[in-house]
Parts: sequence; C-alpha cells; structure tokens
Amino acid sequence: MKLVGAGMTAVDHGGSLGRAKTLFPHAPHPFVDLSTGINPHSYPLFDLPATALSRLPESERLSELAEIAAKAYGAPSAAHVAAAPGTQILLPRVASLMKPGKAFVLGPTYAEHAKAAAIAGHAVVEVTDFDALAEADLVVLVNPNNPDGRLIARDRLLGLAARLRAKGGLLVVDEAFMDVGPAEHSLAGDVGEGGIVVLRSFGKFFGLAGVRLGFALADPLMAERLGTQLGPWAVAGPALEYGIRALADTNWQVTMRARLAAEAGRLDALFSRSGIPVAGGTSLFLYLSLTDAPSLFSALGERGVLVRHFAERPHVLRAGLPGSAEEWRRLEDALAAWASQRDEKPKEIAT
Amino acid sequence: MKLVGAGMTAVDHGGSLGRAKTLFPHAPHPFVDLSTGINPHSYPLFDLPATALSRLPESERLSELAEIAAKAYGAPSAAHVAAAPGTQILLPRVASLMKPGKAFVLGPTYAEHAKAAAIAGHAVVEVTDFDALAEADLVVLVNPNNPDGRLIARDRLLGLAARLRAKGGLLVVDEAFMDVGPAEHSLAGDVGEGGIVVLRSFGKFFGLAGVRLGFALADPLMAERLGTQLGPWAVAGPALEYGIRALADTNWQVTMRARLAAEAGRLDALFSRSGIPVAGGTSLFLYLSLTDAPSLFSALGERGVLVRHFAERPHVLRAGLPGSAEEWRRLEDALAAWASQRDEKPKEIAT
Repeated sequence: MKLVGAGMTAVDHGGSLGRAKTLFPHAPHPFVDLSTGINPHSYPLFDLPATALSRLPESERLSELAEIAAKAYGAPSAAHVAAAPGTQILLPRVASLMKPGKAFVLGPTYAEHAKAAAIAGHAVVEVTDFDALAEADLVVLVNPNNPDGRLIARDRLLGLAARLRAKGGLLVVDEAFMDVGPAEHSLAGDVGEGGIVVLRSFGKFFGLAGVRLGFALADPLMAERLGTQLGPWAVAGPALEYGIRALADTNWQVTMRARLAAEAGRLDALFSRSGIPVAGGTSLFLYLSLTDAPSLFSALGERGVLVRHFAERPHVLRAGLPGSAEEWRRLEDALAAWASQRDEKPKEIAT
Repeated sequence: MKLVGAGMTAVDHGGSLGRAKTLFPHAPHPFVDLSTGINPHSYPLFDLPATALSRLPESERLSELAEIAAKAYGAPSAAHVAAAPGTQILLPRVASLMKPGKAFVLGPTYAEHAKAAAIAGHAVVEVTDFDALAEADLVVLVNPNNPDGRLIARDRLLGLAARLRAKGGLLVVDEAFMDVGPAEHSLAGDVGEGGIVVLRSFGKFFGLAGVRLGFALADPLMAERLGTQLGPWAVAGPALEYGIRALADTNWQVTMRARLAAEAGRLDALFSRSGIPVAGGTSLFLYLSLTDAPSLFSALGERGVLVRHFAERPHVLRAGLPGSAEEWRRLEDALAAWASQRDEKPKEIAT
C-alpha cells in the first residue's frame, strides 16, 4: 500500500510537445507523438456553425447530447448522464459525492485519480489487491486500466459495487478506454442500481482531446448533483456539436474499432520483432515492460519519437498508435537503430 | 434579507431560443435575441488549427493565455490568474475557497451566485445594504451589477475587502461586464493583497459565449488552488486559441468599447422615445423598470424580439443590444406597435 499524501507535486502527463522539445532539443521535428492513448485518426472535422462559438450553449442541445451519449455508452437513460468539459474536471466532483472517508485507488493507474480523491478530502491509499478494495468507502479504478490494459470482469466489479453499496460506499470506474472494448465488461448499463459512477472520455476514442468532453454515468440523483456542480453551460458549443454528431455515428465507431485493433496488432508485432516485450495494452496503446526502458525512451526521443515513461516505474513504457505511414516508418527506423545499438553492447554491464 | 434555501429550483436564464420558441410559438423567426448581455458583434472568427481540436491542450499555451489575460485585465501577474471553461463552473469552486460559513450576496443580482455559495455549503443570505456585507465570511457581488448596472466604487470595495481580510474572510467580485468599464473601478489590480477574487468573463465582451472561457484573478495561492481543482486541461483548444488572440488584440477592444457605448446610447434613446424608463445598465445591456413590463415582454416576444424578464421581479426587464440594422428595425417596429397599443388603453385599469 502506498499512502498518497497532501503534498502532491504536478503530475507528468503524456501529450506535451513543449515538454518533449525540452527533453529532446536536437530531435527531428515534428515529433511522432505516441505519448498518449488518443486515437490519431480523429473523427472527421467539420465546419461549426458560427453560433456554436458566439451563443451560449442551448440546454436543449445538451439534453440531446445526453440522450445520444446514453445510447452510445449503454446507460439506462439520459437522466443517468452528466456531461462535462472533459472527465478530468469531473474527478474531484465525483470523489466529492462521498463525504471525506477512506478512498482506495486500484494501482498502479492514472495518477490524477488519487490526486482528485485527496482534493475531495479523502484519505487516499493506492492498493494493488482487488480483494482489498471492499474495505474502502470510495473505490476508484480504471477499466481497462491505463497504462497496462488490465481488465477486470464485469461480474467481479458488480460484486464489489454491491458490497460498497450495502454500506453506503461508491465505486467509480473510469472507462476512458472502454470504447475499444471489451464492451461486455462495461458497467455503463449498471449505474441505475446506484453506488456506481462510470466515467467515459470522448476525446480519446474520437481523437478529439482538444474539444474537452467527458461524461459521468450514474443514478439520476448523482448525475443531477454532478450537473448542478458544473452549472448550465459547462459543455462548450464545439464539444456539443462534435459530441452529438460523433456519438450518434455508429458506423464510424464500428469501423474505427476494427481499424484500431488491426493497428494495435501491427504495433504489437513491431515491438515484438524488435525484442521489446509487450506486457499489455488496449487498441489505443501498448504497455511495454523491459529493464532498459530508459534507454529505449531516450533513443526514440532523440529520433523524435515520443513514448510515455513513468517517473516512479522506470522499467515500463506506454506507446500509442502512429497516425500515418510516415510516422510508422519513423518509429520502425528508430526501433531498428535502437535494437542495433543495443546488440552491439555487452549483454550484462557490471556497474 | 432573503434566505436562500437548499431546495433550489432551476434558474431561468436568458439566451435560450428553445425556451423562446415555447413561450412565443407564433413569433416570426429568427428571434431577435436581446435576452443576454452578450456582445452581438463577436470577435472575428478564424480557422482553428486541427490540432486545437485533436490534441490535448498544451500547458505552455495555457501559460501564454494566463500571461495575456493578466495584462488584459490588469492583474499583477500570470500567477494571479486561473483560467476555466467559463466563469460559471468557477462559482462553486471559488465559494469553496472558504470553509462553510456565512455568505452574503449583494442582491438583487445574478442568481447563480447564491446557488453556488449554497452548493459550497454556506448559509447564504441575499442582502441589499452594502454596509451590512462586512458581517459575512464570504461576500459575493457583481460590479457593475447584472441586471441593473449599479456600480460600486473601488475604494468602497477595498474597504470592505480589508475588513473581510482582517478576519480571514473573502470578497468575490464578479466583473463579468467590467470590460465595458468603468475600468478604474476594477479590483483586478488589487488581488495580490489577498482576500479578493475577481471573476472575469471572456464570452460576453468578445461575443464568444459558446467557447466557454472565464478567469478567476486572485492571490497566487488561491489561483493555484483553483487551478488544481480544475485540473490540467480545463480550457479547451478553441477557447485557448480565441482567448490568446482576442485578449491580446487591444485595438479591437478599444474600438469595440466605443462602438458598444454608442449603440447602448442609441438603445437608451429608443426606449426613452417609446416612453420606457431606462433605470440603469452598461454598454452591453439596459435595465428597464416599468409597471407594465409583463405586457412589454409579451408584446415584444410575440413579434420575435426576446428580452429578459425575471420571475421574481415582474416590473423590470433587461435588454441587450441588437446586432444588425434588421434587428434594430424589428425592435423599433415592435416597440412602436406596443406603444400605440398601450396608448389606446385607458391609463388606469381598476382591477
């Protein structure tokens, strides 16, 4: 168990090209940014009506978005949906649905969850044993997990939710990467029972992280409480327009899911060919576990290929999908260069 | 004094065309929407880079926005700025900077302030006497006020802030309409003293309410606490791009201020000519006080001209600026029709 203290420092995130330039000032530009799990093939951009920028977002349009989101994610109804400018801003609000108590975060996982629970006043502990979770008042876990893709089956989650619910507790499941499945393990359809909040991210699967759109799925009372905290115009005009169109576009979603699965397979094969063990992942990122991860991170970075490293876990990396033939080529070249360099070194270095 | 209870109902806001259509189903379309105080002449729209939608907002870009906002609003530095997806979402967070206590809102004013303070756990009272405010732990007021334009001089506000600060209290000044002045009464430059939070709205003056951008100006510790609550990507890509460009565009701002002042003068003259007393306002809206306000609201609405009415104050209306020659003409026609209809009626009706 790891106690998460109040003296929190800024969390390092993927997706910052500014940081990449600082780390690798001599890398060729532009960077191939594989440091996030964001789909590189964004939903087709379209011209927004000027009123999406100039006018206050209409409440009717927000209701429409909630309807469509409920259908897309499989929530019981629009009353079970709270839309927000990204899931990130929801995290402290969701944690605040419970009075300050004992919060367990199933780790290792996305660092902002522990931070948000601490902001909400909880005593936060990161635990790695699923069976220990039921002792908490508030449990937060990511399914499938980021960064390793670990999946917890729906029936186990429902069992945990029932135990928490019985004592007035709350299970929060961040399904940020559930768009790429396996959908049968989503709890979106179970939030009506109460005691469960499911978080869904719009920007990752639809490749539109800049519009800021995310959802909490919960029983109607909790969804309303969250909506009240966010106020009447939390979702911006562009997010409303993209959300409504993309979440209703089932054809695009089905096609994209298949495409991402194929590309993740290609990425898996590429790493494996390069002697890099793939220890997990989803269709949006792979989780690499190797003792010389720092050397791989640097070698790729110097060639302008940015993957995600983790300060506290130096032996793992996370890599998202390249977005173009050119990006694939640059990754392949960088991996080949790293592999040949590695092969020239003695296998064991006495230090 | 009016006690604001926990059993709050949805607040009616201006700016909803959906609601207008329900109220006035036979009105000619499109509506001339004067129900908000949003500038009808929006900052010029421009093409966003695709990455503003597809990529996570860059923290460097957010820092740039904070720098520019500090200069534009006159805050001591970027460290005194917390940027958010609209000021609305900031309200409960700002109220939460204080432990639950006694919150006074200087009324009548924008209804969401009392609601937000109640969400934050405060016992909220709406007071109308400025001198009574110092008894509270948290004071929230709007300057210039919405909907009546009442202005409180900076030195009185600083005196109040000093009294609150001395006992660990907080003064929140919502300067949503201060962009149109009088800027010398802004507290933006005084937030470094501590105990003061100034709220600034981007969407109203720049006519871009849909992008959702707002700021809290405060001492660096409070600004950081607010930033932590909002998380790393609270401001969407489009809001970042528009905020950076428009807040740096001093020429546009100076020209627009003069234009809005002239147009508000024209609107004032028009209402006065129609026998409608203008009791206050700013360059972005006028405050009308007349006993037959409900009849004026309906007569305008049926002709497709929407002004703002207030459920609890039936004798006042608020009217924003028409945006085009056609909109001015429709307002003038609707006012003339109402005035001639009124003149045909007996002046006093015994009921």
